[in-house]
Amino acid sequence: MKAVVKRGNALELDTNFAEPTPGEGQVLVRTLACGICGSDLHALHHLDHMADMSRRSGSLSNLDPNADIVFGHEFAFEVLDYGKNTARRLPTGTVCTSFPAAAGPQGMELVGYSNLFPGGFSELMVLQEELLLPVPEGLPVDLAAMTEPFAVGEHAVARARLDPRTVAMVIGCGPVGLAVIAALKLRGVGPIVAADLSPERRKTAEAMGADIVIDPAEGSPHDQWASLGVAQSLAEASVWAMTGKETRPAVVFECVGVPGMIQSLLENGPPGAQIVVVGVCMETDRFEPGIAINKQMGLDFVFGYSPEEFAATLHNITEGRIAASTVLSGTVGLDGVADAFRRLSSEPALVKVLVKP
Amino acid sequence: MKAVVKRGNALELDTNFAEPTPGEGQVLVRTLACGICGSDLHALHHLDHMADMSRRSGSLSNLDPNADIVFGHEFAFEVLDYGKNTARRLPTGTVCTSFPAAAGPQGMELVGYSNLFPGGFSELMVLQEELLLPVPEGLPVDLAAMTEPFAVGEHAVARARLDPRTVAMVIGCGPVGLAVIAALKLRGVGPIVAADLSPERRKTAEAMGADIVIDPAEGSPHDQWASLGVAQSLAEASVWAMTGKETRPAVVFECVGVPGMIQSLLENGPPGAQIVVVGVCMETDRFEPGIAINKQMGLDFVFGYSPEEFAATLHNITEGRIAASTVLSGTVGLDGVADAFRRLSSEPALVKVLVKP
Repeated sequence: MKAVVKRGNALELDTNFAEPTPGEGQVLVRTLACGICGSDLHALHHLDHMADMSRRSGSLSNLDPNADIVFGHEFAFEVLDYGKNTARRLPTGTVCTSFPAAAGPQGMELVGYSNLFPGGFSELMVLQEELLLPVPEGLPVDLAAMTEPFAVGEHAVARARLDPRTVAMVIGCGPVGLAVIAALKLRGVGPIVAADLSPERRKTAEAMGADIVIDPAEGSPHDQWASLGVAQSLAEASVWAMTGKETRPAVVFECVGVPGMIQSLLENGPPGAQIVVVGVCMETDRFEPGIAINKQMGLDFVFGYSPEEFAATLHNITEGRIAASTVLSGTVGLDGVADAFRRLSSEPALVKVLVKP
Repeated sequence: MKAVVKRGNALELDTNFAEPTPGEGQVLVRTLACGICGSDLHALHHLDHMADMSRRSGSLSNLDPNADIVFGHEFAFEVLDYGKNTARRLPTGTVCTSFPAAAGPQGMELVGYSNLFPGGFSELMVLQEELLLPVPEGLPVDLAAMTEPFAVGEHAVARARLDPRTVAMVIGCGPVGLAVIAALKLRGVGPIVAADLSPERRKTAEAMGADIVIDPAEGSPHDQWASLGVAQSLAEASVWAMTGKETRPAVVFECVGVPGMIQSLLENGPPGAQIVVVGVCMETDRFEPGIAINKQMGLDFVFGYSPEEFAATLHNITEGRIAASTVLSGTVGLDGVADAFRRLSSEPALVKVLVKP
């Protein structure tokens, strides 16, 4: 079959890649659409480091970063065939999406970051029958493929301590930040402040439901806190307390994932704020615990989503409660994947590019 | 009056230090006992850095680190005289403790870290009348002076997400770690695992109520998790999940406050653990957010205590629910303070030294 294979630090279109075979409880599927994730861009050049960090995180990871890998974990597909010991509850041809995992001989593997199971940048995949979610009638496959990235936002917001007075700030409006905005909007949280250096991404953030968008090049997003009812400093909080003015609670979502972001949020964010770290910074970072202590802040690190959050996200996209089409920037075939990786790394106007094998 | 004054990086016994005068709403008191805090040891040499960090944390701090300061914020005292506009509800001679704060012309100051209000390493202090808590009949002043350090533990544990199955680990059994153990014990949390390199501190931790004490030189405290019912790695958690074995939630209290501790807890602590950072690391630290993300950990930074937590701690010490005497290592006069600072910096067997002016 055709597949885009990571070999070294390059993506090669292999027209004769080995077709996967469904094992017990597994399904053979044909990929219809698969999004390119920021983690894929990073993994193309730093998979050895990612594999090392995964090992040091205590993951059961069999990933050989130097062997062939087919990326792609944000997908919609149709059912082609079943392996042994399957219930075959969905007719072949049924369009589905799925939590991107499959059982290998050494445990569950992440489809898209596995040497055993090719991901969605290939014509065929093997997945677990019990994880398949049929795509409701009428939902375009492009939107169904967006279940995975929006589930990341759902999971991050589920970790936030929200009450009706919470002010939310989203730092970075790439796919992760947009998914967080969508999940905040779903819960009726407001105002939502969103910051990004790219004018196109700020526009997309507004379309997704951000109430206030900020260009950090023109002024710090933290300049907004007081006008939103949040005391930005300990001094301000104590003055407000003396005059009987309550400060609203603040949650900040870090959706950039580069070194220095966490320290910047500790220095400039409001005292008592919860910082939910969704952006994946793979490098060693530096910060001053003394500032976090003085301001009694919290850092909650989140990753992925549960099967329940994944299913709820598909439902919300289907019902139109998540404007998933807002993030779609274009479509390429398998022969366009390598170029799309290059463009996504340099053009902030691009949010989500779909691959249609 | 006599006071031990920080001048440069030295402590001088000044026999003619200016007596403080109570302003409106304030009380003049005679210090009876005042504990030496680890922060005082740090401040003697690094107060400029502490003041800078406080300023960058947005505190309303008027502290001039190069001007005279009298340390001491863990105290019991007797009421001597009242300033203007006071209710005078307590007769002179009443023994009290207090949240260590007093109102200056530019806002509240921390007594013990103020150029305006001398702390407890002096014969006389000025405090706010409304913050005074009378020490119940029969409670020795030495124990009443321990309200402040034990309130720190109460506040840290109040921030922890505890349920009846939570396993708590306390890293570092100095005054802060011991206060955390006391507050955990009060809530019936168990088992409590405590780790410290010092045999004397491990012994004190046991006396305070730790169920398991670990010498990190002999084996990592993290080797205990599985036997306590907590999955220590993502791989272990997934194996347990498949076999229907639930993992108990874990809270780790970081009570050491030196660089590298947080990274060590992220690498070796259980996935999903809440790390409550109580130890004050004043240096820039390094960590890998990628590991915290993979393991979905949380870092909650805490500082100080509320007036309510302070009052509850005095009550718990009075009722014998906190074994406050366990931490007392000795008593010095004002002429012994400088030497006690030196000994506390080098002798781990010493936990809390009381100054009696």
